[in-house]
Amino acid sequence: MSELRRDPLFQRWVVVTDQRWDDLRASLRSPWAGPPELCPFCPGNESHTPPEVFAVREPGSPPNAPGWLVRAVPNKFPFMRIEGELQRSGEGIYDRVSGTGAHEIVIETPSHDDDWGALPARHVAAVLLAYRQRSLDLRQDSRFRHIVVARNAPARSLQMPHPHSHIIALPVISRRVEDEIRGLQEYYRRKERCPVCDMVRQELADSRRIVRETDGFLAVSPFASRFPLETWVVPKTHRHDFGALEDGGLQELGDLLRDLMDRIAHVVPQTEYSLVLHSSPLYPALNPQYHWHLDIRVRLPVGGGFEWGTGFFVNPIAPEEAARLLREAI
Amino acid sequence: MSELRRDPLFQRWVVVTDQRWDDLRASLRSPWAGPPELCPFCPGNESHTPPEVFAVREPGSPPNAPGWLVRAVPNKFPFMRIEGELQRSGEGIYDRVSGTGAHEIVIETPSHDDDWGALPARHVAAVLLAYRQRSLDLRQDSRFRHIVVARNAPARSLQMPHPHSHIIALPVISRRVEDEIRGLQEYYRRKERCPVCDMVRQELADSRRIVRETDGFLAVSPFASRFPLETWVVPKTHRHDFGALEDGGLQELGDLLRDLMDRIAHVVPQTEYSLVLHSSPLYPALNPQYHWHLDIRVRLPVGGGFEWGTGFFVNPIAPEEAARLLREAI
Repeated sequence: MSELRRDPLFQRWVVVTDQRWDDLRASLRSPWAGPPELCPFCPGNESHTPPEVFAVREPGSPPNAPGWLVRAVPNKFPFMRIEGELQRSGEGIYDRVSGTGAHEIVIETPSHDDDWGALPARHVAAVLLAYRQRSLDLRQDSRFRHIVVARNAPARSLQMPHPHSHIIALPVISRRVEDEIRGLQEYYRRKERCPVCDMVRQELADSRRIVRETDGFLAVSPFASRFPLETWVVPKTHRHDFGALEDGGLQELGDLLRDLMDRIAHVVPQTEYSLVLHSSPLYPALNPQYHWHLDIRVRLPVGGGFEWGTGFFVNPIAPEEAARLLREAI
Repeated sequence: MSELRRDPLFQRWVVVTDQRWDDLRASLRSPWAGPPELCPFCPGNESHTPPEVFAVREPGSPPNAPGWLVRAVPNKFPFMRIEGELQRSGEGIYDRVSGTGAHEIVIETPSHDDDWGALPARHVAAVLLAYRQRSLDLRQDSRFRHIVVARNAPARSLQMPHPHSHIIALPVISRRVEDEIRGLQEYYRRKERCPVCDMVRQELADSRRIVRETDGFLAVSPFASRFPLETWVVPKTHRHDFGALEDGGLQELGDLLRDLMDRIAHVVPQTEYSLVLHSSPLYPALNPQYHWHLDIRVRLPVGGGFEWGTGFFVNPIAPEEAARLLREAI
């Protein structure tokens, strides 16, 4: 059973599970490499996952059977469990919360091998629809304070190669989000404005760090990018809640993300990247000061202990250069 | 030329250098792989580095010539430069500081291939002596607010395979250290005690997370470890300044670190790890509330975008189990 533990100095929460060391080492050495016909995420094997909680499927096709384009299911091996009451406890200077949460998987395509680069943009929009619908459903549960959506790609580099994303609902708020909220509040107090809106205005006026602009969204290389080719996607007008994004917005965002993946693949073929969706925390209520955004980290083997240990990132590529590379990639 | 940039939302500083993309990609593909006789860190090649600023050497041997055991030199390819005045500037919502700092390399051994595991403990103590002496010297420079020491090992996995550490003096304080100081201050305000001292007392009383104890130091798996086998080494009594550690303490710490490396290598042969030394920031003055410590991160291919993007770490191995593994390794 997992639990959340808080560091008394940094006041950051960590999810600690109780995997056995030998099992962990074995899983490190041997990612899942069965034939696609045994893949639990492939069509025909729907019974190998818990029953679906959402799907985009052909009209009339029954749940938990082929005919789907995108399918969301509870994770069979979650690191947080949805059952049971949330329990908080202390142990001397330490704090614990039971590992109560939700951990769902969005199976992004029936195809075992196709990453987003191979999907039409409207298919990416269907994945985003799953993010939205599951976020809206999970937030009904009052035990949860924050919902995070993350994907790592290409899936071939992962233990489970069939393309998928994680949706995780947590009973606590991460240190990073606490820092972000504190930064927001300080900015609002001084200026009565949203710092992300200010960023959008300044980037549009400056243009050197713009990767791409659409009617509703801006893709930029952030001024203080931590990683080469780090990219943020933000709505150009203030929106705190990804859950309120309309279908037209999902389609526009799907187009944009699909295009960004092509650009990244042109600059760094075969690269791994991570994508994380940040929307307002749920507790004590949705925060209208928040400005939702997506960030994309291209994973290059740069950096090391210095970044990890100190919180200082060293980015060898200036964001202006990164934006130029991505802008001119296609 | 590099510069420091601050993110307006997270208020974290990032070092941005202006490497060319093609050069970065080339360096990713081809780590330095020349023969040892061309290695700038090997004895006989002292003229290939900037002149040494510290060395532990045979009595009577001249500087910048063979005869050394440990040698500290300015980095020939620093990401911060020591020359020039510190310059601060703004650009709309963004903040910049010139990349003014120090970046030195501690060449840890004359041997091109030996990691700490192959060195006698007194040799590791000589490396720690270099950390101490260079920290004491660099802090005389009033432009610097924080000094960080970090090493990644084994060096064979790095671009420069000869074992070495980095000592970096920075004109700003990282977000992580700001968080740590804020956590300290809140704890002191409520309890009038140091949280790390409280941790030491509780861990000694509990004993499940102790990896090893010596007269002066405790090595523990932290209650809220972010990574499997994460290990902290702390002085058992309150000390804010690594620079004040006496020679006997360096020797004791060298013994302990040497022993921990053996334990880690027994549990995960051939693993990579990072070691970071955290001592009090220098600005506005040394902070007597601080409790210096070392942390060791064993690098296993676990985790991914979730940790990076959200600030939530998922640690599959309970710290009590990690401590047991390391305790019983030898």
